[in-house]
Amino acid sequence: MNKIITIGREFGSGGRELGRRLAEYLGFEYYDREIITEIAKRSEMSEKYVQQVIDSDPHSLFPITIGHTFAYINNYAIDHQQEVYRHNRDVLKSMAEKSNCVIVGSCADYILKDYNPYKIFVYAEGDSKLARCRARETEQEHLSDKKLKKYIKNVDKNRARFYEFYTGNVWGDKVNYDIMVNTSNVEIKKLIPMLAKMFKD
Amino acid sequence: MNKIITIGREFGSGGRELGRRLAEYLGFEYYDREIITEIAKRSEMSEKYVQQVIDSDPHSLFPITIGHTFAYINNYAIDHQQEVYRHNRDVLKSMAEKSNCVIVGSCADYILKDYNPYKIFVYAEGDSKLARCRARETEQEHLSDKKLKKYIKNVDKNRARFYEFYTGNVWGDKVNYDIMVNTSNVEIKKLIPMLAKMFKD
Repeated sequence: MNKIITIGREFGSGGRELGRRLAEYLGFEYYDREIITEIAKRSEMSEKYVQQVIDSDPHSLFPITIGHTFAYINNYAIDHQQEVYRHNRDVLKSMAEKSNCVIVGSCADYILKDYNPYKIFVYAEGDSKLARCRARETEQEHLSDKKLKKYIKNVDKNRARFYEFYTGNVWGDKVNYDIMVNTSNVEIKKLIPMLAKMFKD
Repeated sequence: MNKIITIGREFGSGGRELGRRLAEYLGFEYYDREIITEIAKRSEMSEKYVQQVIDSDPHSLFPITIGHTFAYINNYAIDHQQEVYRHNRDVLKSMAEKSNCVIVGSCADYILKDYNPYKIFVYAEGDSKLARCRARETEQEHLSDKKLKKYIKNVDKNRARFYEFYTGNVWGDKVNYDIMVNTSNVEIKKLIPMLAKMFKD
């Protein structure tokens, strides 16, 4: 069976960099944006729309009863989300069948559980995440520190909702991972030889 | 400055074994029961009593007002706990000054923060902790699974209370540690080369 490493990560924790470097070091395939691209191809939706569907709160799409009033049921949005999740599952499984790989996000730890993945969660303190976001050019660079912190929290809130909706597990809860790595005050590349040690002698 | 590794651990997670093996592998000193022995020596209390003071809930020693009634204030118990904590701090600091070392428990991650320790937290799923407790002979081996699980939870509850009382931090909360290691379904000794990689090339 191929060796699969899945990476859950807080926004701004450097989890993506960690995954990419770890894959490079081990000579494994690396999948991140490639998953969205593949879902877009299979579903004939645009990459941007696929990302938008993933980023939306799944709970908000389902009907809520308040007194005797039914909230509006946005059927096509539910269908799209289900379709995206179904493609996500198929894409991840075909990646896992193909070769050793590192997969970032996408509920891969849960979806690929039969492949016995090594499950890493990457996190950091608030200030450290802020600094990492500032260090890279993003669409959010014009935001004040306060607003950027709020944005970071919000991204994670959506990740948590998507994960919990589809897996029934709590995102970032230690019981779901083999190892949790704090990247505050540490150079990501210094962590790679340690993590790689689980896969290479 | 010496290299210090501190280990917080859930009861039954094998954190002590992990610490001992890691110290052996790295050629570092290992401190666990030795801390209690040293506190007992310095305070002229018995080891058993020192352990008992550490295991008691610090909050229960402080007065609570209910209506106009003051609960009984157990002064000597407060004094002993403060004394034990003071010795614990001094003992840990002298250990950290002496040589590279691995220290299990004792709020070492907090007390030695100026020594920049590498902070590990070891945890596992409930069934895995139960199995680890069953595998070693202990005073609790006669307990039913249900009672043993309750006992395990209780030990951790007291550890959490002691830690939180003296550090103001939440025991087992990922923000307080550099790495969190899940020992469910894994041989402890297989984790050692990975962890050691942070300290040895």
